[in-house]
Amino acid sequence: MKRVKVSNNVIRRMPRYLRKLDELTENGVERISSFELGHQLGLTPSQIRQDFSCFGEFGQQGYGYNVASLRAQIAGILGIDRGFTAILIGVGNIGRALMENFCFSDWGLRLTAAFDIDPALIGTTFSGVPILAAETLEEYLAANRVDVAVLTVPKAAAIGVTKRLTANGIDAIWNFTNVELTAPDSDTIVENVHFSDSLLSLSYYVAERRDEEAVRSPDGDQ
Amino acid sequence: MKRVKVSNNVIRRMPRYLRKLDELTENGVERISSFELGHQLGLTPSQIRQDFSCFGEFGQQGYGYNVASLRAQIAGILGIDRGFTAILIGVGNIGRALMENFCFSDWGLRLTAAFDIDPALIGTTFSGVPILAAETLEEYLAANRVDVAVLTVPKAAAIGVTKRLTANGIDAIWNFTNVELTAPDSDTIVENVHFSDSLLSLSYYVAERRDEEAVRSPDGDQ
Repeated sequence: MKRVKVSNNVIRRMPRYLRKLDELTENGVERISSFELGHQLGLTPSQIRQDFSCFGEFGQQGYGYNVASLRAQIAGILGIDRGFTAILIGVGNIGRALMENFCFSDWGLRLTAAFDIDPALIGTTFSGVPILAAETLEEYLAANRVDVAVLTVPKAAAIGVTKRLTANGIDAIWNFTNVELTAPDSDTIVENVHFSDSLLSLSYYVAERRDEEAVRSPDGDQ
Repeated sequence: MKRVKVSNNVIRRMPRYLRKLDELTENGVERISSFELGHQLGLTPSQIRQDFSCFGEFGQQGYGYNVASLRAQIAGILGIDRGFTAILIGVGNIGRALMENFCFSDWGLRLTAAFDIDPALIGTTFSGVPILAAETLEEYLAANRVDVAVLTVPKAAAIGVTKRLTANGIDAIWNFTNVELTAPDSDTIVENVHFSDSLLSLSYYVAERRDEEAVRSPDGDQ
């Protein structure tokens, strides 16, 4: 695929478009205008057209977007059709929640193995995925192509495991540890899931709402 | 607090600033320039100054930012000092992972109760939080001030529970269900945690990297 550097903000909107298009497909919608798509996503039609224009021409003047073909194009942009593989390290609560409830294959990733240090877990299978001994990680990476490592170990183990991963060819980490894994200039692709960032954004909007309420009813005890 | 409408992008960077400032505090750093702060966060100094200028004047020309006071101001902006309360609905894997591993109180929220329909869970306590019968939700909301509902129920229950919450005064939901909870014009504040959005952004960057590698070594077999 020809690659142009696309801004991070545009890339982060792509999964939202995909979710919306999946929802439209479920509801039997076959085509949609950028106006309507924008309305449903809280974006302007011109922003939508601009986002898509980073990747080529998707819509048709006067017709709008064909939902199925736009879905396929965005899925392609996001690499869903690449057959990427993933391993998960750390089968605690969050690791288990992902293995049980998150459908990696819906997003084109095959979760091929999980790793833990707990002897009670090693050798068992969770949601069809074998749990291997953490000490065999290097061996596994030497023998198998792995595109993404899902990091769900405790904080204290995060940096150590990251070093072992990157030293053995892993260049992309989905990081749930809340630990800054790499230096800013590192080559490793790290996608952080920071629950606190999400909660604090929510908290901001709640604080804003409470302030507005206080202004509306200054004598209220809310 | 005087409120100006601040763009969502700025608000989403605030928790990142907070995390960085916590890290600096841990490392004994007492003041920092916008240049150095920008470098560590991958932002330009002018973007940082512009972000903060939405909320007032934080830095001092030639001195930079005092880490402790900037931290306190950002915490205030994010509502960490408001004494917000939260309940959690659905004590499955993800609910448990949050209750066990996510420190709500670090972010100013007090988790006062969790709700589930499983008789084996009801009446027990998880990480110090009582698990109550889901059927008593309305009763609880009538008797207690709750600012945020954390929604970790299965998909099929998401909309039904949301209706019960909003009908009983809840106006902010931290949504882990991957279900679109409300209409676009709803008054309810919903913060969605979409694991798939995060994974797909990562997938995009992996795809981009693989394309670059293929260009660099067109004969490679990778």
